[in-house]
Amino acid sequence: MYSKKILNILKRKKIKIGDEIEVIKNKKSYKGILMPRIELGDKNCIVLKLKNGYNIGISSKNAKIKLIKKGKKIKFEPSKIRLMRDKNKRDISILGCGGTIASRIEYKTGAVFPAFSPSDLIQTFPELKKIANIHSKKIFDLLSEDMTPKHWQKIAKEVAKEIKNKKDGIILMHGTDTMHYTSAALSFMLQNLPVPVILVGAQRSSDRGSSDNQMNLNCAALAAAKSDIAEVSICMHGTINDDFCYLHQGTHARKLHTSRRDAFRSIDVLPYAKVWYEKNKITYLRKDFSKRDEKRKMKLDTKINPNVVLVYSYPGIKPEFFKSLRKYDGIVLAGTGLGHVSTFVIDELKSLIKSGIPVVMAPQTIYGRINMNVYKTGRLLKEIGVIGDYCNWTPETALVKLMWVLGHTKNMKKIRDMMLTNYVGEISKRSIIRGFLI
Amino acid sequence: MYSKKILNILKRKKIKIGDEIEVIKNKKSYKGILMPRIELGDKNCIVLKLKNGYNIGISSKNAKIKLIKKGKKIKFEPSKIRLMRDKNKRDISILGCGGTIASRIEYKTGAVFPAFSPSDLIQTFPELKKIANIHSKKIFDLLSEDMTPKHWQKIAKEVAKEIKNKKDGIILMHGTDTMHYTSAALSFMLQNLPVPVILVGAQRSSDRGSSDNQMNLNCAALAAAKSDIAEVSICMHGTINDDFCYLHQGTHARKLHTSRRDAFRSIDVLPYAKVWYEKNKITYLRKDFSKRDEKRKMKLDTKINPNVVLVYSYPGIKPEFFKSLRKYDGIVLAGTGLGHVSTFVIDELKSLIKSGIPVVMAPQTIYGRINMNVYKTGRLLKEIGVIGDYCNWTPETALVKLMWVLGHTKNMKKIRDMMLTNYVGEISKRSIIRGFLI
Repeated sequence: MYSKKILNILKRKKIKIGDEIEVIKNKKSYKGILMPRIELGDKNCIVLKLKNGYNIGISSKNAKIKLIKKGKKIKFEPSKIRLMRDKNKRDISILGCGGTIASRIEYKTGAVFPAFSPSDLIQTFPELKKIANIHSKKIFDLLSEDMTPKHWQKIAKEVAKEIKNKKDGIILMHGTDTMHYTSAALSFMLQNLPVPVILVGAQRSSDRGSSDNQMNLNCAALAAAKSDIAEVSICMHGTINDDFCYLHQGTHARKLHTSRRDAFRSIDVLPYAKVWYEKNKITYLRKDFSKRDEKRKMKLDTKINPNVVLVYSYPGIKPEFFKSLRKYDGIVLAGTGLGHVSTFVIDELKSLIKSGIPVVMAPQTIYGRINMNVYKTGRLLKEIGVIGDYCNWTPETALVKLMWVLGHTKNMKKIRDMMLTNYVGEISKRSIIRGFLI
Repeated sequence: MYSKKILNILKRKKIKIGDEIEVIKNKKSYKGILMPRIELGDKNCIVLKLKNGYNIGISSKNAKIKLIKKGKKIKFEPSKIRLMRDKNKRDISILGCGGTIASRIEYKTGAVFPAFSPSDLIQTFPELKKIANIHSKKIFDLLSEDMTPKHWQKIAKEVAKEIKNKKDGIILMHGTDTMHYTSAALSFMLQNLPVPVILVGAQRSSDRGSSDNQMNLNCAALAAAKSDIAEVSICMHGTINDDFCYLHQGTHARKLHTSRRDAFRSIDVLPYAKVWYEKNKITYLRKDFSKRDEKRKMKLDTKINPNVVLVYSYPGIKPEFFKSLRKYDGIVLAGTGLGHVSTFVIDELKSLIKSGIPVVMAPQTIYGRINMNVYKTGRLLKEIGVIGDYCNWTPETALVKLMWVLGHTKNMKKIRDMMLTNYVGEISKRSIIRGFLI
């Protein structure tokens, strides 16, 4: 929020967030849209969105503020404008969950709070219209680091609604930070999908020339409308060039770089496909996916228990650390190597398991399969009941799966059985050589 | 330990661990060396190392045990046999810290507890003799998952001793699970190195045809004796073939696969070099390393405070979790994306920092640079004093560095200054495009 001083000036001049204003300071003039002050920082600093899309902050000291034009009325509901439906094209739904990719709409439309209507979307991403009939809805507008298991449930239910409404493909615009956690969650919550469900995001915001949002969304739309892959997947840049996107399996994908456009990679499997938007082409890299079948009956199962902790093992980790975990209903251990921890914490783990808390092993190496039979430490862990032998899940997928399993049972035997059941290909039957570093 | 019943039989027959014995059961005969029962499991099960190198367990029920031959006397001290020193070759020291790679000596020599003498080593790895004069010492024999900061100190001091004794290169045989933590620790503890210090391990044990220990050690020896790279590095398989090893920078390396022989990769940088043992060739991939200079004065600085916790951020992480961290002297946060956490835990982080506990950000994406200026969450974290902006360190290197820094100061300003000081290239000046997924 702005300081009282600024709020008073704005009130006096009848200026509201979203209005076009001019700020004059030191004889220089700055014109743009008044943005809300949503973060900590200097509350006496006015934030303007300039025409070039950049936001700037101007200290209000000795500054004059003028109203140029009232902003468009902020629409929170989808626009009523109906686009002509082309009956030769499939119908896809684009659902907004927030993230960098959504910021483009704001930028293009000038709206501070974009309404996320199909017409907004098509104004921003004009190519979409060529691919399919576009439907849209904003579920929420969240930084993906703030996503929680409750949000996964909400998203799953909204996707299920769209599928019941006979949409031929669903796209989720989502922030990239935790996109792979959400894709894993949706994989478990939405089984037996009849049509593709695709998460898409952007690594670079729309005010940068290198933004990847346009291509990622176009590829996602092509895959949603035309691919055969009725699975939950992630569609993001395949390389640092604008050549193709990969479609990654939802339970085997991971953000592996902080900033690169091709940060998302398939872990321990090949991507389902390459999607070449400009060539209108989809190259399948695998065959082991469920094929599109509008008659297939989807299984929506959003039960989840978020009271799970993810623990990274490291040299010097203390047995006492595990004592503070008694209030959790489950623990995922990102162990070293084939699935190990320091042997001097094993007694604590044993006592946690004895008290009814399941402990699941996942590899902190990210790639590869847990094997608790090769070394003494692994055999000890297996013996005390640590779950996960032969599983090639990332720590993130193991975490999400344990939350989902604990939403269904508190019985240790059932937890173990469910964890080791391969629901949606989260445990690959075979490891393939090419599934590393591609 | 074996059961009392078995121990009594062994006592009666004057059989000791390490002796060659025969076990007859169900009319079948098994011959091999009696191994100690060092793990939990059936205490009535006799463990034999067969001639082919495999261990088997045989239930003692209805089994007959015979002594075939007393084992060699177990030598804990390095053998006294002196090898002829070739004055045209450099002198390298091989120090044993345990791990799979060391298991080969046991296998080849038949000793249950290998003495790790130079002659043992050369008997097992005969090519070593061609490369350099070999000196050796066992520091300890530890599973690398049991390594702690105290062990890093011990290793650093032993390396320093060897360097003072004018060795031209030091090799550390080490388990692979936590090898990259140790390499980072040694990088900070042993600065201004005059000669190479190289960690080497094996992903496959010596009783498997695909074992990588021979090639890894030969390449490490070649690099220790002949390369110019006076830095701490890791020498492991570059591909799944037996073609070359990479020499990875100690602060930018990571085990990225549970089982592949080429599991170790350079993160965000190129490896220093490719080492082709069979071709007797070293191909340099970088120039930004300290060159070998026997006159350079090494700086040994092993001060460390291991009371640091590594926390992985994930959707659903609870503010309460951070309350249990007040007894730590430092926290490394493996954040999402460019360095984020759920905004609803920021207040807890703020209060930890205010109470004097430094919080350091590292990327859970593994690759890439922290940037806390792009998004609101990052700016908030920076504002409350989270350390690590623009740093491209792995969570592991950030953890080790914070432990090392906290060994030197408790003053928050100094901690920040030291963390952001680039001591050994742990913060790369530039990010290179080829530093991803190679």
